[in-house]
Amino acid sequence: MSDRRPARIAALVDGLSAAHLDGLLLTGLSNIRYLTGFSGSSALLVVTPRDVVLITDFRYQTQVAAEVGDLARVAIESSSLWTGLWQQLATHPALMVIGFETAHIQHRDFQRLIEAGARWQWRPTLDLVETLRERKDDDEIDAIRAAAGVATRALGNTLPQIKAGLSELEVAGILEKALRDEGSEGFPFPSIVASGERSALPHARTSARQIAKGDLLLMDFGAEVGGYCSDLTRTVVVGKASEEQRATYEVVRLANERAARGVRAGMTGRDADAIARQYIERAGYGDLFGHSLGHGIGLEVHEAPRLARTAEGALGEGAVVTIEPGVYRPGWGGVRIEDDVVLAADGPQTLTQFPRELIELG
Amino acid sequence: MSDRRPARIAALVDGLSAAHLDGLLLTGLSNIRYLTGFSGSSALLVVTPRDVVLITDFRYQTQVAAEVGDLARVAIESSSLWTGLWQQLATHPALMVIGFETAHIQHRDFQRLIEAGARWQWRPTLDLVETLRERKDDDEIDAIRAAAGVATRALGNTLPQIKAGLSELEVAGILEKALRDEGSEGFPFPSIVASGERSALPHARTSARQIAKGDLLLMDFGAEVGGYCSDLTRTVVVGKASEEQRATYEVVRLANERAARGVRAGMTGRDADAIARQYIERAGYGDLFGHSLGHGIGLEVHEAPRLARTAEGALGEGAVVTIEPGVYRPGWGGVRIEDDVVLAADGPQTLTQFPRELIELG
Repeated sequence: MSDRRPARIAALVDGLSAAHLDGLLLTGLSNIRYLTGFSGSSALLVVTPRDVVLITDFRYQTQVAAEVGDLARVAIESSSLWTGLWQQLATHPALMVIGFETAHIQHRDFQRLIEAGARWQWRPTLDLVETLRERKDDDEIDAIRAAAGVATRALGNTLPQIKAGLSELEVAGILEKALRDEGSEGFPFPSIVASGERSALPHARTSARQIAKGDLLLMDFGAEVGGYCSDLTRTVVVGKASEEQRATYEVVRLANERAARGVRAGMTGRDADAIARQYIERAGYGDLFGHSLGHGIGLEVHEAPRLARTAEGALGEGAVVTIEPGVYRPGWGGVRIEDDVVLAADGPQTLTQFPRELIELG
Repeated sequence: MSDRRPARIAALVDGLSAAHLDGLLLTGLSNIRYLTGFSGSSALLVVTPRDVVLITDFRYQTQVAAEVGDLARVAIESSSLWTGLWQQLATHPALMVIGFETAHIQHRDFQRLIEAGARWQWRPTLDLVETLRERKDDDEIDAIRAAAGVATRALGNTLPQIKAGLSELEVAGILEKALRDEGSEGFPFPSIVASGERSALPHARTSARQIAKGDLLLMDFGAEVGGYCSDLTRTVVVGKASEEQRATYEVVRLANERAARGVRAGMTGRDADAIARQYIERAGYGDLFGHSLGHGIGLEVHEAPRLARTAEGALGEGAVVTIEPGVYRPGWGGVRIEDDVVLAADGPQTLTQFPRELIELG
């Protein structure tokens, strides 16, 4: 992916001049990774039209050289990254007005800027890099497709091992081992395995509850490949589905299919959300779909754009988004079906190739 | 643990009067969980001498009632937590000077305080709750002991399954499944499985590298029980250990044992660090122990206190800390041995009961 990074930095530098900034201090680690390839957990990055400086600590000396190459000047700091920052900035006499990332800097560190860094003028910026990240290039789509493949194969390997009597935690263990066996570098978010009436909690935590015959079983999880995430949900029935389970499932399945086929670059996030929401409303379950339809994925599992009733912005070409309608009936259970879809120029492509039809286990 | 929470809030309220604050806005989720029991990912908490108000969103309506009980007044917000905050604050006419958590609020949200919240005076505070959290009560120590037990049993179940030819990712999968089978609610941090010369990277990521006969294999991972973390590292040899591996291992093992036995409440973090560091230095490996000896654990896997060369503060009674000396030889490999130790009144107790002697697998 090294060939794409100079173009990303060039695009950011264009954004800086448009915003009348001499440079930008980056504190958001996913933004730093996007621009430089550095995947460590401790870094500051300064981008100016003249150069790129990455400041990290001694733990990452070997890693940073391998990941960043000659794309940025690297400064290894033994005490504090901030001490390193003042030293690096002082070597740039023309640097006066510097942006910082208002959504990625704690107030404590902002205080450092206006106290120890008082000789520079600091301006809050929002989403300068996030906007670039919204449109995925081919390498990024390949990485997300690979992460989607890991997730779907892991689910396929897991389903035959699930049976009544296992706890949600045990099912999570089987699923996470399958993700590792397929090569997942990590877990982009804590896996949700929720059974029976617990599947009705939109943000359930995996618990020690034993799965019973006839339960709905909701699994929401992801894989990571090359730093990029996938995010997949399937809901199955352990045993034979009841008519009510089947009817609820079918509404969610058709809402998912319509949205995954109908979503388009250029559409607003609100209109995309409405494809699924109107279908669920017409089926009489409108009150039971309490969250939004989806979100962008990439280096982070939640990033721009949003597919929601309040999202007025147009979805960009090349965005990768989740489509995850759900119906949650308190005290009874819930169904969510989630896929990852790239908004290509010629229409949407689903990256998570896994059957949407209801699966009855055992 | 519900009985402890009112006492925690009372202790915080004492701290507020000492700091001349009418109230405190909490944005740090672990601090909110410590005070109220709420484990969701979206919350604001306001503590005043008169009452406690927790603001969260509709996704957590069921969960918040179960977790918080009548300890706090709960406000469910359908749009923005911040809108809910202004409404709640407005019901307190005596509230003028309010603290906020400088280490747990993004600059973007701080801007909201001084713009939308301009009718109140906002004062940065640091570590008001963290200081309380440093001293664990008996319930907390029981939870960490349980998490330590999950981690040691999972490691015991994993070791017989490890053999040359498996990848680091596959070993992570076996270990993480064992953690789930033992009841771990989650993974407090990404598991590190690093083999061969990769074990020399203090912050290695688990990779697809195949483990070879004769490799050092370092595993650094944790479990979570009741929200509390454990953090355990063992380094083994896959096959027969070489003399050099054995000699390096013994230095780290004895450094760990001395520190785990010698650390005391009342000692500075620097003096605790020195127990292990001086031993490693005398053995001639001083340059190869590049990180600090340890850190507190609790609701978070990194919290106060620090055991490091720069830690001048005294270690408090009731703190639970890691003891994790290491020796890293670039291009050759590394050894780290980590235990969790509670600083009880009558001396240190190791919670991670797992043999420290070198294990040769297969």
